[in-house]
Amino acid sequence: MAWSIGTDAIGDLARGAAVLGTGGGGDPYIGALLARQAVAEHGPVTAVTLDELADDALVITVAMMGAPTVMVEKLPTLDEIMEPVAALGTYLGRPATHVACAEIGGVNSTIPIAAAAALGLPLLDADGMGRAFPELQMVLPTLYGISASPLAFADEKGNVGVLQTVDNSWTERIARVAAVEMGCSVMICGFAMSGAQARESLVRDSLQRCIGLGSGIAQARTGKVDPVDRVVELLEGRELFAGKVVDVQRATTTGFARGTATVRGDDGDLTLRFQNEHLIASVADAAGDETVLATTPDLIVVLEHDTGEPVTTEGLRYGQRVRVVAAPSDPRWHSPEALAMVGPGYFGYDVPARRFDGRVTEVPA
Amino acid sequence: MAWSIGTDAIGDLARGAAVLGTGGGGDPYIGALLARQAVAEHGPVTAVTLDELADDALVITVAMMGAPTVMVEKLPTLDEIMEPVAALGTYLGRPATHVACAEIGGVNSTIPIAAAAALGLPLLDADGMGRAFPELQMVLPTLYGISASPLAFADEKGNVGVLQTVDNSWTERIARVAAVEMGCSVMICGFAMSGAQARESLVRDSLQRCIGLGSGIAQARTGKVDPVDRVVELLEGRELFAGKVVDVQRATTTGFARGTATVRGDDGDLTLRFQNEHLIASVADAAGDETVLATTPDLIVVLEHDTGEPVTTEGLRYGQRVRVVAAPSDPRWHSPEALAMVGPGYFGYDVPARRFDGRVTEVPA
Repeated sequence: MAWSIGTDAIGDLARGAAVLGTGGGGDPYIGALLARQAVAEHGPVTAVTLDELADDALVITVAMMGAPTVMVEKLPTLDEIMEPVAALGTYLGRPATHVACAEIGGVNSTIPIAAAAALGLPLLDADGMGRAFPELQMVLPTLYGISASPLAFADEKGNVGVLQTVDNSWTERIARVAAVEMGCSVMICGFAMSGAQARESLVRDSLQRCIGLGSGIAQARTGKVDPVDRVVELLEGRELFAGKVVDVQRATTTGFARGTATVRGDDGDLTLRFQNEHLIASVADAAGDETVLATTPDLIVVLEHDTGEPVTTEGLRYGQRVRVVAAPSDPRWHSPEALAMVGPGYFGYDVPARRFDGRVTEVPA
Repeated sequence: MAWSIGTDAIGDLARGAAVLGTGGGGDPYIGALLARQAVAEHGPVTAVTLDELADDALVITVAMMGAPTVMVEKLPTLDEIMEPVAALGTYLGRPATHVACAEIGGVNSTIPIAAAAALGLPLLDADGMGRAFPELQMVLPTLYGISASPLAFADEKGNVGVLQTVDNSWTERIARVAAVEMGCSVMICGFAMSGAQARESLVRDSLQRCIGLGSGIAQARTGKVDPVDRVVELLEGRELFAGKVVDVQRATTTGFARGTATVRGDDGDLTLRFQNEHLIASVADAAGDETVLATTPDLIVVLEHDTGEPVTTEGLRYGQRVRVVAAPSDPRWHSPEALAMVGPGYFGYDVPARRFDGRVTEVPA
């Protein structure tokens, strides 16, 4: 059933989105600011479920593409968000009927709210990943043969482009180098799809899930429940590790925030490897032998130890006391085709995909 | 008066274009093949002078963008040439009436012939530079405020993009990184302008000049005239140096063929510095002190010693006996605004612009 997203829901939604963003997808504080302003200006946004969507609807996704390290310093205005939406509309020759989130993340779940508010269009309670991933082609619609292009991109200076590519990896490659040249973050609009395609390929009820997570954390804080325990319960995941951030290596290269972070606990060190999002969590024993605890595509989430506040990869700082949680991703991410696109091997790690509960999925060679 | 470009004129035109290309603009053999095939298939192309052009004509330029070192190994088909033309046409919403050359060069003067043949449109006897330059914004129309964008680009794989940028330098920047990602050469179509704008900004009678140069070289070879002397006469330039190529340093970086070549003569070494095109010619005495003989924007042309055949920067080889000629560029390239765009300083050389005849133009700080 359709429901309404007002300014009061946005804080919870952005916080929950940052949890599912697994370190990426943008800072929830910034994301909430953007969406609140747009809703205050244009009114609440109607969220509709996939079941309510007409087969012939025209759904578009709106997102920010780039390095989160840059996004936090280069905030988009509503006008910038609308630039690629307008360019795609002109290219398609017909107006979209619904806006959707390409991914779940602190900024990339709230920018579509702002776009929907400004366009006066309903927003789908759904997204393309059920989490965040660093590259544009890494959405379930790619696995259903849905084209990312035509894809429009725009920067804050007024430069706009539209790509029509032979596959979604080429959309990523060309848009990424353009984004880097344009200042390491751009607004994008693409993945135009029918209602039938959206219903089949997207992850359902994502926004409700974000609000549930965000409000669950807030309620736990005021109640007697440990917020991190509450997140573990809501995600149906498990806590991997608790400790203090003792080292963060981070570089913004080829358009991504890449790096590693070390969390020191009572029994050793946990290492997090990330590219915008956390990809691998592993522990080392005293002899230095590493054991992988969890990998992409399952969710690796870093939360502040006591408050349960999600910590983005660009927000990791020396001395933070954190807890690391692993949780299941949408099961479709564990197919061989999906793992070829988002498994550890794609990111250059020669380890099998390890699920939140320790089960291993070997990708067929 | 309008005239016709048939297959028989194309060899001379491409050779003459390679002379004016000052080392860049592509290999004339490849350029001639492309244009001859298109004219054989679609019939001769009508060349029209700028004086014949209606004020409300819609002129577009078609070119190859990338590193000439890659272009010689990755030849475009006529279909590829037409891809960005079609994309721009869709974007503009009305069909072009004339095709023009953005620059003069072995390939970039013949690709527009192929495009005009396939489109059944007249080709302007004109171009945007009167020579070749490495970057997209380096055309006289930029100095007249004419926008490079909307600019369409396409590769041989079927990837297409359209850019709308805030200025022509941004068109260059974004198209360049896309071109590098797409394999270091793409076909582009842009600089849509009216007939009135074309008449004001373009260099006139370029194609006739190319044919005159190309046929001049051919006739000199069969007569008793030295072909290089004939080129010097036709360009109203002067011979700077004669010798043997003893060193070539060449790298394809950031989408360009950059490097230096050393020509050893009786009295010392001449050094050529190039970025697709020759930018600076200087001699060193026995003590190693360097004297600049000529710089961009004037033309620095390398010709085979006896045949007068133009040598492109990617064609420079150890052991070639060559003669180096300098000649005047279009006088508009010597304005302060133009020198800021194409003078030695833009390319990182801290020397004043030196004309073919030794006169120096200091760019005001």
